Amino acid sequence: MIKVGIVGISGYSGEMLLKLLLQHPEVRVTYVSANNSKGKVDDILPALKGRTSLYCEQYRSQEAIEHCDLVFLAVPHTAAMDIAPQLLKAQKRVVDLSADYRHKDAALYKHWYKTDHKDNHNLGQAVYGLPELYREDIKKAVLVANPGCYPTGAILALAPIVTAQTKSIRSIIIDAKSGVTGAGRKAAASLMFSEVNENFKAYKVLNHQHTPEIDDHLSRIAQSKISVAFVPHLLPINQGILETIYVQLSEAPQIEKIFDLYQKFYKAEEFIRILNAGAQPEIKHVVHTNYCDIGLVVDAEKKLLVVSCTFDNLMKGASGQALQNMNVMNGFKETAGLL
Amino acid sequence: MIKVGIVGISGYSGEMLLKLLLQHPEVRVTYVSANNSKGKVDDILPALKGRTSLYCEQYRSQEAIEHCDLVFLAVPHTAAMDIAPQLLKAQKRVVDLSADYRHKDAALYKHWYKTDHKDNHNLGQAVYGLPELYREDIKKAVLVANPGCYPTGAILALAPIVTAQTKSIRSIIIDAKSGVTGAGRKAAASLMFSEVNENFKAYKVLNHQHTPEIDDHLSRIAQSKISVAFVPHLLPINQGILETIYVQLSEAPQIEKIFDLYQKFYKAEEFIRILNAGAQPEIKHVVHTNYCDIGLVVDAEKKLLVVSCTFDNLMKGASGQALQNMNVMNGFKETAGLL
Amino acid sequence: MIKVGIVGISGYSGEMLLKLLLQHPEVRVTYVSANNSKGKVDDILPALKGRTSLYCEQYRSQEAIEHCDLVFLAVPHTAAMDIAPQLLKAQKRVVDLSADYRHKDAALYKHWYKTDHKDNHNLGQAVYGLPELYREDIKKAVLVANPGCYPTGAILALAPIVTAQTKSIRSIIIDAKSGVTGAGRKAAASLMFSEVNENFKAYKVLNHQHTPEIDDHLSRIAQSKISVAFVPHLLPINQGILETIYVQLSEAPQIEKIFDLYQKFYKAEEFIRILNAGAQPEIKHVVHTNYCDIGLVVDAEKKLLVVSCTFDNLMKGASGQALQNMNVMNGFKETAGLL
Amino acid sequence: MIKVGIVGISGYSGEMLLKLLLQHPEVRVTYVSANNSKGKVDDILPALKGRTSLYCEQYRSQEAIEHCDLVFLAVPHTAAMDIAPQLLKAQKRVVDLSADYRHKDAALYKHWYKTDHKDNHNLGQAVYGLPELYREDIKKAVLVANPGCYPTGAILALAPIVTAQTKSIRSIIIDAKSGVTGAGRKAAASLMFSEVNENFKAYKVLNHQHTPEIDDHLSRIAQSKISVAFVPHLLPINQGILETIYVQLSEAPQIEKIFDLYQKFYKAEEFIRILNAGAQPEIKHVVHTNYCDIGLVVDAEKKLLVVSCTFDNLMKGASGQALQNMNVMNGFKETAGLL
Repeated sequence: MIKVGIVGISGYSGEMLLKLLLQHPEVRVTYVSANNSKGKVDDILPALKGRTSLYCEQYRSQEAIEHCDLVFLAVPHTAAMDIAPQLLKAQKRVVDLSADYRHKDAALYKHWYKTDHKDNHNLGQAVYGLPELYREDIKKAVLVANPGCYPTGAILALAPIVTAQTKSIRSIIIDAKSGVTGAGRKAAASLMFSEVNENFKAYKVLNHQHTPEIDDHLSRIAQSKISVAFVPHLLPINQGILETIYVQLSEAPQIEKIFDLYQKFYKAEEFIRILNAGAQPEIKHVVHTNYCDIGLVVDAEKKLLVVSCTFDNLMKGASGQALQNMNVMNGFKETAGLL
Repeated sequence: MIKVGIVGISGYSGEMLLKLLLQHPEVRVTYVSANNSKGKVDDILPALKGRTSLYCEQYRSQEAIEHCDLVFLAVPHTAAMDIAPQLLKAQKRVVDLSADYRHKDAALYKHWYKTDHKDNHNLGQAVYGLPELYREDIKKAVLVANPGCYPTGAILALAPIVTAQTKSIRSIIIDAKSGVTGAGRKAAASLMFSEVNENFKAYKVLNHQHTPEIDDHLSRIAQSKISVAFVPHLLPINQGILETIYVQLSEAPQIEKIFDLYQKFYKAEEFIRILNAGAQPEIKHVVHTNYCDIGLVVDAEKKLLVVSCTFDNLMKGASGQALQNMNVMNGFKETAGLL
Repeated sequence: MIKVGIVGISGYSGEMLLKLLLQHPEVRVTYVSANNSKGKVDDILPALKGRTSLYCEQYRSQEAIEHCDLVFLAVPHTAAMDIAPQLLKAQKRVVDLSADYRHKDAALYKHWYKTDHKDNHNLGQAVYGLPELYREDIKKAVLVANPGCYPTGAILALAPIVTAQTKSIRSIIIDAKSGVTGAGRKAAASLMFSEVNENFKAYKVLNHQHTPEIDDHLSRIAQSKISVAFVPHLLPINQGILETIYVQLSEAPQIEKIFDLYQKFYKAEEFIRILNAGAQPEIKHVVHTNYCDIGLVVDAEKKLLVVSCTFDNLMKGASGQALQNMNVMNGFKETAGLL
Repeated sequence: MIKVGIVGISGYSGEMLLKLLLQHPEVRVTYVSANNSKGKVDDILPALKGRTSLYCEQYRSQEAIEHCDLVFLAVPHTAAMDIAPQLLKAQKRVVDLSADYRHKDAALYKHWYKTDHKDNHNLGQAVYGLPELYREDIKKAVLVANPGCYPTGAILALAPIVTAQTKSIRSIIIDAKSGVTGAGRKAAASLMFSEVNENFKAYKVLNHQHTPEIDDHLSRIAQSKISVAFVPHLLPINQGILETIYVQLSEAPQIEKIFDLYQKFYKAEEFIRILNAGAQPEIKHVVHTNYCDIGLVVDAEKKLLVVSCTFDNLMKGASGQALQNMNVMNGFKETAGLL
């Protein structure tokens, strides 16, 4: 039984994390904070009424250090790098759900997040928290950078083909569609119900901050530079992402071989499900779960592979994956609290 | 051909009004303004790209007076009473979509809208813009107070029974459900997509500012005091209101007589449709139209009449009705620009 | 560890039941069937891929009897009374989610479900499965009739006031709103996405088959005849019910006393949450849980109490409650598999 | 004033056509039919209550011939080729909204629609009804094949680049997303509210029957064979399509030149709006209109052009376009009844 804290329970991923952790057999939630909400947790989050007697206050590092073995940071980008250093210094382990420790390259961070990185010291030891690819590193990590939602799906969906056919890949186009909670719980005019409902649009076309995160890890896997074209869209649903990925190859793909490749690659992974050839992943089959479903179709004549993946942006795309990382870091059953 | 202006085109009812007026055969839109948006209208409202060459600026009364015969005020409550006096003084006619001129009683206004009324002078001459009940007054009006969305349906649905069986009415309960545009285009946390979608709740239970508006006009019609219990709910749809109204009577109602009463009452009205006995009004049948559909059911044993009405909160509940009022004020065909 | 079966996994409540039971610490699912779907469960229900190796076949009583200690019937009304008798004869316990054993009075059943009841023999011993009211009976039951979704909320929301102020109640109006899964998974034209989305309507006004179920149990609690006016509406959401209930009293209610009454009545109940005075229950706070949230407002002048309740029609309104009943019948922790 | 008929008013495009035609200044609707609905139109389509006194019956060619100058066929694929020949023989003009006359090649039709074409005679004279490309032919046509919804957007979005840079095009990928009315008004289990709502999925990946329609016309325009990869998805909204189209070029595109090319190409077209560089088309800006909005983005380094288009599948994608074709065929103002 370990003691965990959550910094930032009033956002969607913080709230989801708290819900999950309250049901986890191996942890006790001992500390929660939020920036603008102070009081009994079940007043702040009415869905949790009767489920917890926790009290939420403004973040103070001394409190977190005193009460926790491990702390989740569910705070906006740029806020985590203010909080993590003290916790790490006090020998606490940290799982950061923000973007602050995802990029080794501080210049890249500055380019995309428009601010200088303030904690170069810990950047070096941060481990990218995608257990299916970096499990061994996560086991030993003290600071885990939980991946972005879009990169989680994109990297998982592309890892097998990128590993196996690095040379054959001509171009990769990712047409992604996300539910609205992916944008966080903030009162932006463009995210009002009447603006999003019965609507659909692309945004940050070829210019989304998750693009370098995808490129970075695919290039690492492929051991050669990969650069994807990434176009996200906003779906009028609460939760869930579908990414339709077009991989242009230099040789005609065969569906049986591709399917076999993916099956074997993820054979041991409980949260990755490769659908039968022809079946298409649907958001409703993964929502509220930690699964990532992957579907495969090829057009041999066009030398085109279409990989599709679905997952819940708040689960495998954020809080579920953070929990999975905690499980790995602590030697718990990897599915504990998630199945 | 008259020249009209709209103050406040960036809200939902202002935008809807502009769309309607651009298609109206008898008017030319000569002036539009908005508080926070300045520039070409088709940049501000992309849906209207190519439809108009109007330029939108911050409101200045001199401009409005110079360019318009009639001005629509699609501004928040408390803002209209700052604008109307100058326009009226300059002999312009005004249709106000806010609540500012709906109540004759300035004390009542203060109680519900938490501010002193600043224009007692014009309160007296304002006419309540429900053409089905006050058509003759509207014809002569220089200042029309366009009704609130909920009162429009409630008063229309209750007018026949309240007129015919005043003595028999024991109590009236209005369980109302509205789409989200009813709350206006403002970035409130509680109106974000992820908060409203897949959710449903009541709000301002027995305490909504439209209640006295309903009471006021029903009492006027009945010539005796009527006080309704009013409970609004927020529907996860963009547009449309359904009100389910429970009228407890002292005598058993007969469906044929009730149906006959309603049919006759609204015989000459193009925008009121009395559904066949047994049929229930649906929001989808009235959305984007100026219709108000009314359905009738009785339980003789319980001495209960259930009147239901549906209408589009942005049309008959706001902008469509404002246009209808303009038509009446100018002697245009009442359905011009609306059918 | 008991062995349980589910008859009818292809409907919404059957699928939900299976999901819940797969996570339940005290049961093993040993048998599942469906009428029109035969094959591996994870082919039939893709959301469960990788979660179970169960095989689904057409129902055969011999198989069910052989493999199960307790069987859930998640079948349409009129189908359950064909299945239950054999299971009961073979000493199996049964939780029936259909309406077949909810009414002691076979004539009432015939009136509302348009068919003769075929199993008078077992009607007598069936226990109405609302644990908060009938827990002791359920403990000893061999056949539990799981309540309808609307009655669950209505009875829970009204039980305290009906118990405490029987004499004072003048009339009860229930304005109910339900998500679409309440109608089951059937391809009806009126339930197609484009018909329901952006729409809202009442149906079976004052004539819904759940009305007598509500009347029956309220009358039993009150020990005097109660007859409610019940009007259901169809909400464009997947899951969740909100019922706004208007109780006309002969004396002015006081909010503190009412709140106190409700608090005490449900003090020991884990799944009933009485909200602070003024707070309104929202569907999003209970969806995917077994909670029923209750909000209270009064208008002393009108002698009116407004009780609102929210719950998930597939959880507390169907499968969650069925699980709760199973827990009670077997002496398991009542919240097992539900919190 | 011409007399028009509609065969098939009970489907979504038939109903939309009727709504539009009732407001058209130059036509009178003189005949309507439907396969399964007989009776007063305002009973069959409650939204039109009070708008028409038309009577709907089962289709009989004699009636249609007698009452109409021009007939719209809003029937399922394979039904139109049974109806059109008699009308054409009787010198009536026909606008067919089905797929039956879209392909000159009967073998292609058979391959995709799984049935022999029965009317080779009229295939030859059918004109593809995309006025922006084939206006002169449509003017003289007696039989217009109204385009499919997806091809309308795809062809319009690609025509300029395909015309101007035929040689430079390496590959075209169309990632399309459509609202649910695109699937028609039929009671399919997969189109039920609870299956589509809060869900998103691809379907008929690389295998949709609209693919050859797109290829056919792009090849015609380019005067060289073009073959697109087409992947449609189902959006949880009622109306509207967004297609995100990836054009891989052999040379780096410049945004100014591309924008200029598109602007000039559609300069004279009232229903095509080229958005300012950087702006993305949104479904909400075109829904309920006949507009097709086009947005342009390039990635010079990747030699990639991303063209996006939005339009309403029931308007420019079906009934609006049918009306536009009728306007062209009759020398009416092309925007009559549409703006």
